[in-house]
Parts: sequence; structure tokens; C-alpha cells
Amino acid sequence: MALPSAANSVTVRLVVPARATAVSELTGVVEQAGGVVTGLDVTASGHESVRVDVTLMTRDPEHADEIVEKMRGVEGVEIGRVSDRTFLMHLGGKLRIESKVPIRNRDDLSLIYTPGVARVCMAIYENPEDARRLTIKRNTVAVVTDGTAVLGLGNIGPLAAMPVMEGKAALFKRFADIDAFPICLDTTDTEEIIATVKAISPVFAGINLEDISAPRCFEIEERLRAELDIPVFHDDQHGTAIVALAAMRNALAVVGKRLEDVRLVMSGAGAAGTAILKLLLYAGARNVVVADMHGVIHLGRDDVMSGEHPNHTWIAEHTNADGFTGTLVEALAGADVFLGVSAPDILTGEDIATMADDAVVFAMANPTPEVDPVDAAKYARVVATGRSDFANQINNVLVFPGVFRGLLDSGSKVLTPEVLLAAADALAAVVKDDERNATYIIPSVFHPGVAEVVAAAVSAAATGKTAIP
Amino acid sequence: MALPSAANSVTVRLVVPARATAVSELTGVVEQAGGVVTGLDVTASGHESVRVDVTLMTRDPEHADEIVEKMRGVEGVEIGRVSDRTFLMHLGGKLRIESKVPIRNRDDLSLIYTPGVARVCMAIYENPEDARRLTIKRNTVAVVTDGTAVLGLGNIGPLAAMPVMEGKAALFKRFADIDAFPICLDTTDTEEIIATVKAISPVFAGINLEDISAPRCFEIEERLRAELDIPVFHDDQHGTAIVALAAMRNALAVVGKRLEDVRLVMSGAGAAGTAILKLLLYAGARNVVVADMHGVIHLGRDDVMSGEHPNHTWIAEHTNADGFTGTLVEALAGADVFLGVSAPDILTGEDIATMADDAVVFAMANPTPEVDPVDAAKYARVVATGRSDFANQINNVLVFPGVFRGLLDSGSKVLTPEVLLAAADALAAVVKDDERNATYIIPSVFHPGVAEVVAAAVSAAATGKTAIP
Repeated sequence: MALPSAANSVTVRLVVPARATAVSELTGVVEQAGGVVTGLDVTASGHESVRVDVTLMTRDPEHADEIVEKMRGVEGVEIGRVSDRTFLMHLGGKLRIESKVPIRNRDDLSLIYTPGVARVCMAIYENPEDARRLTIKRNTVAVVTDGTAVLGLGNIGPLAAMPVMEGKAALFKRFADIDAFPICLDTTDTEEIIATVKAISPVFAGINLEDISAPRCFEIEERLRAELDIPVFHDDQHGTAIVALAAMRNALAVVGKRLEDVRLVMSGAGAAGTAILKLLLYAGARNVVVADMHGVIHLGRDDVMSGEHPNHTWIAEHTNADGFTGTLVEALAGADVFLGVSAPDILTGEDIATMADDAVVFAMANPTPEVDPVDAAKYARVVATGRSDFANQINNVLVFPGVFRGLLDSGSKVLTPEVLLAAADALAAVVKDDERNATYIIPSVFHPGVAEVVAAAVSAAATGKTAIP
Repeated sequence: MALPSAANSVTVRLVVPARATAVSELTGVVEQAGGVVTGLDVTASGHESVRVDVTLMTRDPEHADEIVEKMRGVEGVEIGRVSDRTFLMHLGGKLRIESKVPIRNRDDLSLIYTPGVARVCMAIYENPEDARRLTIKRNTVAVVTDGTAVLGLGNIGPLAAMPVMEGKAALFKRFADIDAFPICLDTTDTEEIIATVKAISPVFAGINLEDISAPRCFEIEERLRAELDIPVFHDDQHGTAIVALAAMRNALAVVGKRLEDVRLVMSGAGAAGTAILKLLLYAGARNVVVADMHGVIHLGRDDVMSGEHPNHTWIAEHTNADGFTGTLVEALAGADVFLGVSAPDILTGEDIATMADDAVVFAMANPTPEVDPVDAAKYARVVATGRSDFANQINNVLVFPGVFRGLLDSGSKVLTPEVLLAAADALAAVVKDDERNATYIIPSVFHPGVAEVVAAAVSAAATGKTAIP
């Protein structure tokens, strides 16, 4: 059962009689019902009664309703408005666009708009590179989605995807001082997406593709990289790959194994899985098998032989040298590493028990991992998930701000495997040798300086390189 | 000759000997050369010398160079860096995107991003109208251009157009608290522009088309209005029409004539001219002739008879009932009103002298009016231009912020002539009866409350109306 969380906080405005025990009765009721009181704010007081805003974490909206009903049962309590803190934070959207320049009077106007602006336009017309100096292009990234693969929610469309894209833009600002703007597309057609992004590209210094479903995301990224002169980065693929490799470096250091030597079993052959696989292979992994919902991918499988999924064919050609043909669970026996970016609850603790000693388990499915991390930890030495309520959270927020900061700073569009590897190694090294242990293989999202470290590595690796689309 | 202006300001960093007269010698040189010193800032001082930043208005960049050379000639002066204030204001662009919500810790992150954001996404998925409550869509407008008709600069392309679009976005914020974002398109194809704007429309509550050349702008606007559920407003057409009509109302009040009665001669049959014409006719004008560079448009003209320019055909059918066939100058004889949105210096004071008594002249070509306003004022009673250095500036900034504020507030996409007329009349009424005179027919751009007045009129006129695409 999920634990109460800040993401499911509500604030209950209520009036309690001014008797000594009233508030403690109320908080007692909340705690008995499984809620966690995180704030008590008296907003008005009189001789007879007190008005209090009680903020509490719940498990989910139904749990919140249940708790509020129980609070209503406390003698003399009148329940007022119940506010969902998550929705309050989203009211009116999460971004605002501000003018950097004052517009106080006609002189200001004549500098930033007509007639002064005409000279700036002509400077850019004569030397287009000046757009990076004299416009917002320099520091502006588009967060582009079609809403087809949003979080674990699936194809919810561009409007419903907006809160995520706004959040992403807010994270770009928070962690890398990048101005990011959400572009949520009312089309899922590959060609239309490519044409639209190309058409709006003059304003931007980079394109962050987000939550676009496979296999369209592969072609969209590839084509845009080839046809645009700015970097194009699909965070679900490469952001995930970088953070996963960084954590894997440290996990293997903890258990004293080498990437070149370990047997690695992956679950998931979608966008993230494929990108992680490619980066692991580039980084030196040699013994990998990849399973999807139909079992381990091998050269003899129908979909591989038919060429129906070019991606699966590629995987079969580059993994599973022994031609293993069983299920994921069968493949897991004796493996050193499990890495999942697939589906919830497909493995049990007993499955993990069949792995080699000092096993490493990355169960990254969101919001519910491939295996319960508490169960996995009984048998594996290192366990990581995508969740914030366990140790070792594998979170892209550690990566994408720094990657774009590095690309914008260096004016590069290069995103070769070499650049991705440099970012992963830099991120891994944020965890110092004497800090690294089974519960600390990756820094926290709020670890200071992470984006700077990643940016510097990306900038150094990307500078002077030729883009390979 | 142009006057020195803030738009052509430079700041000259220099070191002068610490003798009593050094600074006054320097400012004397500037003034003799026709510059205007607007600031003297001592930035360092010693026994022997003083470092000073001298800010001065010049006529243009060549004039600035000339003045700096003369300053170099003052005994003992060392000239350092010369900064162009206009370019300084544009460095790094003029907009920034900020997060409205704090991201201080994991709790914040879980509210604005995963996992909390998922509930907000699903709320919008289930009820798409909630996007206006829970995302930036509510208050966000796209400023869309293809860079084909930028200011008086013409087809300079999307990159060079950016400083104008950023400035426009800054004005949206300054005057109507609207979050506007520049969309500068790397295509001039009508269908591609329509497809792109439709594709990115989910994020926006309105589309402000800007500086797209005629005749493509007509079809683009019409099609987008029909195919989108948010308002689409081509500022060059309708913004200009509203502000021109507002000023015309007051100009005619000053001279004691009625729109229904006056003979009105227009120059310019492009996007702005056509929109002004249509709104003037809707507002009651009955006696209008329109000239373009080939003379007055009439039913017998080749381009009208061939139907080559549908726009000219429309004009011929709705104006010039007498079938006048001469030149602009010939048409002007005896006219009550001249209104130009065409080309610089096509009329002289003598031409204006042929008009009726108490003539009204709106010479709105930018940056150089159709007739020198000083010459025009010798013969006309009321003269208005697009320039900020004469009385009666006809400036769209008085209109577009309020129009969009009114549409967003009312949740309407209706932009019928009735709505445009309501905006114009509200703007005209900002100039009170006892304030109105030949040099004050339109409020200043910085007149407080203009956007609110226009917004209220638009909101009232648009509410409950059915959109006519």
C-alpha cells in the first residue's frame, strides 16, 4: 500500500471549539486514519472557537475523503473548504513570461521596440549568428511533446500533457537557468511533428523531445537532428540512459564488479530501454540479454526475423550472443544485474533470489517498479528505483538541465555516445569514493552543483566535435 | 533631418584630466556636433583624472561615430569603450521564463512534477476545459510571424524578426499582464503556417499574427479563425484599424464633421489599409476612395476587372461610388480626410493645401510618413502620424494588449466588426470631451488604464456572441 505523500496533501479549513483537547483529538483522528499532519495554522481565533488550516498528507484522493469524513465526526468541529495542495500549486499554470527590460516611458519603448529595434533586426539580418547574442534564442529550449506517452499515463493528448511539460520547463529554470517553453502538439503524425518543430525552430537554441511514444520518437529525433542546426535530445531515451549508466557505474563499484564482466538482464525494449542498452554497450557491457513482454529477444524470434520491429532486430544482433530463448524470469538466474524500464510487478523477491551473489537491481518502471524494492533488497545488494520514497532514485532531473546547459554554453549540437558517456561519468563522479555505498549510488536531485558538473562534461566532450546525426 | 533620439543613444566611457573645464569642454563638443548629452556618470576618480560615462542621444549610428571622433579631439581625453544603448538593451534577449512555483525540496517537486502532476494531467484529460484553469493556457498568447513584413524593413526572415516579436511580447506583459511568447516561423508557405499554428495551438489562449505580408495574411487569418477554438487577431490589420478609427472619431469631433459626411481619401490597399477601410465603412463612412501606387482603385481598372487581386475588387465594389479614375493627388482636392498607410513622402504640403477646410491628415507610414507632418500642419487642422516625436501618435500598443485581455477574460474568440468598433469607441472615449483638441485626439501609450478600458469594451461586446469566422 502506498504511503501518505506530499503529492497527496490536502489542506482542511475547519473551526474547532476552544477547548484544550480539540486540536489533539483532531490530529489523533487523522493519524488513526493513516494520514500525516504536516501543518496546523490558526487563521482566526475567538473566545469560543478557533479557525485552523490543517494540512495533511494522504495516500490518495479517496484516502483524503475518508480522513475528512472522520474529522467531521470530532465533536464540535465544523469542516470548511478542503483544498488539494497539488491542484492549488497548478492553478493558473506554473510558468510566467517576464520582460527583462523596463518599459517605463517612451525612451524605453524606443529602445526595445520601434524605432530602435529596427537596428537590432538589421544587425541579425546581416549576421544571423547575432541572434544568439541579441535575442532569447541564446538560452531558450522547447519542451516538445505530442502527449502520446506521458509519465505512466500513456496517450493522454497534448492538453493533458501540459502540466508535465510546464513542470519540466520549471525544472530547466531551477537547475540550469534555462528558459524553457512547452510546445504541446495537436498532431501525432511523424511528418507533421517534424515539420512543425522545424518551422518553429528559429526561436530556440535546443529541442527537448518528451513523452513521444516509440517507435515514432526514434525517427522524429533522428530526422530533426539531421535537419536542424540546434541540439535535439529525447530525454526519455538519453536522459534516462545517462542517469542509469551513472548509477550503474557506482552500483558496480559498490559490489566490486566490472561492467565488462557482468551478465546484465534488461526488461523493456522501448525508447528508454533501447537507449540505455546502447549506452551500456558503448560503455563496455558485453553480456546483455533484453526481454520484452514476449520473453528474451533473440535472432530466431518471429518479430526479429520478419524485420517487423527494426529496433528488435538491432537488439537481437547486438545482445544475447548465446542465443538464450527463455523468459525474463529464466534469464535472470545467475545474472549480476537486472535493469527494468518496463512494467509494474513483473518480478518477485524469489526471482531476484535466483540472481548471482551481490546482485544489482534497477527496477525503474514508474510509478510502480518491476519488483517491490523492499522484497528485492532481501536478495540483492544494491536496489534502485525511479521512486522518491526509496534510496537510489534514478531521476532524469539529474541529467537534462546539465546536458542542455553544456550544449548551450558550448554552442554545440553534438550528442554522440561519447558525449552521453561523458555526462554519465561526470554524474557518477559526483558521488565521491568515500561516500559511495549500497544506498548512495546516485546523488539526490537537490545535490548542489550537479547540473554544473554535467554541463561542464558535456561542453568539454561536445566542443569541437562534428555532429553525427 | 532626424532629431537625436533615445533609440540612437550611445554611452562613451572616457577618462578626462581633472581640470575644471574638461567635462564642460566635452559636453560642448557633443552639443556643437548636434548630439544631446543625457547622462554624465563618474565611475572612478583620482587626483589626476576622472573616468566618466557620457550618455548621449544621436541621430543615427554614423552621427554617433562622428561625435565620438570629435570628443577624441578634446585635449587630454582618452576614449574607451563606446556602447550602443539600444544593443545593450537587447543583449541576451528581452524575455525570460520563470517558474511561478517554488522548487525547494522533494515535497515541492512531488507537487509540481511527478508523482503529483499525474492527477492534474488526468483531471484535464477527463475535462479538457480544465486546461484553462490548471495550465498556462489561460493567459498565454503566441506572437506569430514569418518575418515577411517586419516594421518598415520588409522580408527579413524569422530570426531577424525576433527582436520585434520579443518586444511585442514584453508589451503584452507590460500593458495587459499577458504571457506572450514569440513564434518565428521558418516557412512562408500559407498552408505550412496554418498547419504549424494549429499544431502548436493547445498551449495558447490566443494567436496574435504579426508582420505577415499580404495577401497571405488574409487567408492565414481567415483559415485559422475558422479552424481554431481560440481567438486569432492580425494586429497589423485590426489593431491598426481600431486605433485609426479611435483617433478619427476624435479628429472629426475636433473639426466638427461627421464620419458619414466626410470625403475620405486613403492611400494604401495592403493589410492595414484594407482593414482600416472595412472598419471605417462599418462605422459609417460613406464617401471613400482608396489609392495604391497605381492611382485610385475603381471598377474599370485592369487588376480589378481581371479579378487578379480579389482585395482590390472588393475595394472597388465598396468605395468610389463616383467612379473617380485619377491619381492620389488629384483625388485629394477637396477631401476632408487623408489617411495613409502606404509609403514615405508621397505628398507635399501643397497637396494638403488642396483639401477642404479643416482637413484631417493621418500620415501613418512608418518610419517616414506620407507627408512631412510639419508641412501638413500648415494646411490641415489635425495631423497624426505613427511617429513618437510628433503629437497624435497612432500606435497599436494602445490596442492589442486590451483586445487580448478582453478576449481572454471573457473566454471568447469573437472578433466581429462589432467588437472592433466597440474597442475603437472605448479607446476614443479615453480622451474626454474637455481634453480633446487638434493635438490630443488619442491618448499616449502610457496613459494609465487604456488596456483596461479596451479590454472591458471587447469583453462586453464579445461575450455571448457567435463567432463569425
